[in-house]
Amino acid sequence: MINAVGRELPEKIGSYVVKPFLGTGLAKDDYGPVVSNRRPTLKPASGTKLVATLEDAIKASGLQDGMTISFHHCFREGDKIIGQVLTAIRNLGIKNLRFAPSAVVNVKNPSVVEFVKDGTISRIEASGIRGELGDAVINGDIELDEPVILRPHGARPRAIESGDLKIDVAFLGASAADEYGNATGQVGPNACGSMGYAFVDALNAAKVVIVTDNLVDYPCCPISISQQYVDFVVKVDEIGDPAKIGAGAARMTKNPRDLMIAQYTANAIAASRRFKDGFSFQTGAGAIPIAITNFLAEKMEEREIKASFALGGIPAAIIDMYEKGLVRVVACSQSFDAVAAKAIAANPGVIEIDNAVYSNIYAKGCMLDRLNFGVLGALEIDTDFNINILTGSSGEMMGGLGGGPDVADGADISVVTLPLVRGRTPSVVPKVFTLCTPGSSVAMVVTEAGIALNPAHKRYEELKEDLAAAGIKTVTIEYLCELARSIVGTPKPIETTDRVVAVVEYRDGTVIDVIRHLKR
Amino acid sequence: MINAVGRELPEKIGSYVVKPFLGTGLAKDDYGPVVSNRRPTLKPASGTKLVATLEDAIKASGLQDGMTISFHHCFREGDKIIGQVLTAIRNLGIKNLRFAPSAVVNVKNPSVVEFVKDGTISRIEASGIRGELGDAVINGDIELDEPVILRPHGARPRAIESGDLKIDVAFLGASAADEYGNATGQVGPNACGSMGYAFVDALNAAKVVIVTDNLVDYPCCPISISQQYVDFVVKVDEIGDPAKIGAGAARMTKNPRDLMIAQYTANAIAASRRFKDGFSFQTGAGAIPIAITNFLAEKMEEREIKASFALGGIPAAIIDMYEKGLVRVVACSQSFDAVAAKAIAANPGVIEIDNAVYSNIYAKGCMLDRLNFGVLGALEIDTDFNINILTGSSGEMMGGLGGGPDVADGADISVVTLPLVRGRTPSVVPKVFTLCTPGSSVAMVVTEAGIALNPAHKRYEELKEDLAAAGIKTVTIEYLCELARSIVGTPKPIETTDRVVAVVEYRDGTVIDVIRHLKR
Repeated sequence: MINAVGRELPEKIGSYVVKPFLGTGLAKDDYGPVVSNRRPTLKPASGTKLVATLEDAIKASGLQDGMTISFHHCFREGDKIIGQVLTAIRNLGIKNLRFAPSAVVNVKNPSVVEFVKDGTISRIEASGIRGELGDAVINGDIELDEPVILRPHGARPRAIESGDLKIDVAFLGASAADEYGNATGQVGPNACGSMGYAFVDALNAAKVVIVTDNLVDYPCCPISISQQYVDFVVKVDEIGDPAKIGAGAARMTKNPRDLMIAQYTANAIAASRRFKDGFSFQTGAGAIPIAITNFLAEKMEEREIKASFALGGIPAAIIDMYEKGLVRVVACSQSFDAVAAKAIAANPGVIEIDNAVYSNIYAKGCMLDRLNFGVLGALEIDTDFNINILTGSSGEMMGGLGGGPDVADGADISVVTLPLVRGRTPSVVPKVFTLCTPGSSVAMVVTEAGIALNPAHKRYEELKEDLAAAGIKTVTIEYLCELARSIVGTPKPIETTDRVVAVVEYRDGTVIDVIRHLKR
Repeated sequence: MINAVGRELPEKIGSYVVKPFLGTGLAKDDYGPVVSNRRPTLKPASGTKLVATLEDAIKASGLQDGMTISFHHCFREGDKIIGQVLTAIRNLGIKNLRFAPSAVVNVKNPSVVEFVKDGTISRIEASGIRGELGDAVINGDIELDEPVILRPHGARPRAIESGDLKIDVAFLGASAADEYGNATGQVGPNACGSMGYAFVDALNAAKVVIVTDNLVDYPCCPISISQQYVDFVVKVDEIGDPAKIGAGAARMTKNPRDLMIAQYTANAIAASRRFKDGFSFQTGAGAIPIAITNFLAEKMEEREIKASFALGGIPAAIIDMYEKGLVRVVACSQSFDAVAAKAIAANPGVIEIDNAVYSNIYAKGCMLDRLNFGVLGALEIDTDFNINILTGSSGEMMGGLGGGPDVADGADISVVTLPLVRGRTPSVVPKVFTLCTPGSSVAMVVTEAGIALNPAHKRYEELKEDLAAAGIKTVTIEYLCELARSIVGTPKPIETTDRVVAVVEYRDGTVIDVIRHLKR
């Protein structure tokens, strides 16, 4: 069958029944009351939930072959929890698990691939499987009976609360926790800041294990994850590498191309009628977003306007705006650096939010639906404004879905920023290799070679008018595509077999694309 | 049948099937995964959840005859929400509702009784129905087909999460809220402080309506109840009477009898080996508890010790201790006055907690299970240390169950404080009229005539030793009972019919006693 964005999909992959993507705004309230898998239990007879080792916690949790385990990815590339837990599970001989973290970051030593190869893991569901694991899946180095399910941040809470993804045991890392399970990422030597991706797991997993390297006196304060959701607590030597969890504030980029893209983006945003006192935005992390944030801050100071809120994964640049009085509330679903991680405990207006309220389409209205401006990165964009944020120029797994598809859909004005070409690879193409975010939800794309508005976007007329009034010239997406081609030529098409190895879900749980084995 | 505390119970009352109380510590994990009734919905097409009137919200919520509605009681005697909502429901002609607030406080103009009489309400479940409503039920002024179910604070989350109490529409008052449903009780002219009793409703009701008189810019900050759980927001003129919601800090009592009881209690607590650095306590509100709190603060300063946490309903006296550095964390399930209400937003160690984590026996371990000392009030205590906190000397409904039964069970040492006699009524009696808290969970009782230890309590030997070491003399409960009788004589027994009008549940959902019609 063919879905609403023209992708050909099988009806079933393994046991996964494909519901084709029907278009944005067509999501229906198609399941009944929220289904929690949480198992209420009585207080521990011992008076403590502390167990000596990860093996003890795993045994006590009742984890068995074929069950589902989850993790959050708030420690990012610095995570040392997933490796330790999977090793302990392997030591206990438990097999065929469904591995369902909020995202798989590129952790090594050990890599998740090893645990797939030895049969500990036989199914994978996450927002991304960037790096070694993704490459192994897409290259056929590992073979799974079921497709990997890739879900954007907003689709994971939906999957969990609808019962599609029932978690048996969640292993949640925390940089501070007490023996009764109250836990946070806001304090401690390995602070990650917001534990936004852990809440839906804590509320809905049958059993919850807190893994910390920093056991504090009862009660832990602040409390992000409440003891009422926690069964066991384990202290390990180290939950992460602080340098990789939260590096210092990113400096402003000096790359002229990135600065140009950022300046164009800030100019376009500032030209919008929605850029006024009380507006809201999400810019994200990375060189271009940080520069955009800084440029926007300058424009806000010039115009003497203040934002009502900044949202999402938060870097130091946004905390800086808060401290300057340019943003009233900073709602952090994730903290991208050490400055942002520490800012939550220190500032009443910098708040930790649950990923479900950040992005879940079925959450009675999530926060990103209230965004005026959402800035998105991309690996590729095509002439229909469809975005690829997963696969690179050779089809390799380069990114995760993250919240991009959600933000594009929720924000009044979604802006994709990317360089026209990367090395010998065009970024603006006739057709994206993997379709992650439907073009209809993308308002404009900004490159160093110009800004293109999407005529199919609901705010097209408004944006066109506002940009014209500000004297900002635009180009067509076809122009950008042709320009990219003229610079680097047409890349050799990526060849795949028919075997589907991953499905790309949209935020409503429908399938927007699939990923096939690469031909070798 | 006869339950474990010797009370005779019918097997069934209306459609309510009686599970007899089997004794403390016997609660079993007797239900499966948590059952939420929450209905995920999509963001409102209008972009706002604000509706013009309560009637509009009720209509939009889909409320129909026979459904269940809930409220929290954090505005206490100052509540103006229940009356307005019930009036709106009556105006819409919706009948036979199950009325299931966390507690019914004695609100008048209109009183809840009117809505029972006119058929708007036909079933009642709450922690207490003090005042006009309770009297009408117990006197037979109103007749209900089903018994009123009285649950202590810890039993209500259990009832909701087990599916025993499925809430269709929760009407949650908030002193500040934005148009998308983020709400708090911490700020605004009618601040109530902690909204502890609202969380379980917000998480589990099919539909949630926020009622506020203080609409703030999006996003409301702080956020107690998150927009992800809220369907509609209504602004009314006034949600409450500030003087009754949160009066100023209670002054220290000058009543010599109350001061004597408080001093004895503080002395006994200070004599315990558990009164040491890092201890925890709950003292509550009222003249005697406030005096106890102040006396304990003095003793802590003398001994240079600091408590790890204070818990429960919090008055200004505890905030005062926090400010003096005598308590590290103040965990507020409720705020008892204006000082305590404002303290949450102002102090990082004064935190709002969900009533479920405060008291729910099925919450994987609640906070009151970690208490060293819990101070309880009572209307009567008997020679088996059983406590009555519901009915007065003529059998009238005088109190609510509150968290007393929970605290007694959870705390290492539970202390009941009460005067030996009140007017012509003895407080220490051979047998309590209504049994709310089993004597086996009560460690000691303190009156102005002496302290009696409960030989059946698990900490009896320890307490006896500690009090003796401190030179504190004790008496027997029989001595206190006889002394009370010698002062005021033996009251005429309260006569009842056989008709059961209310059941008193214990924290595990079993029935510890029933309340029968009074003979007139």
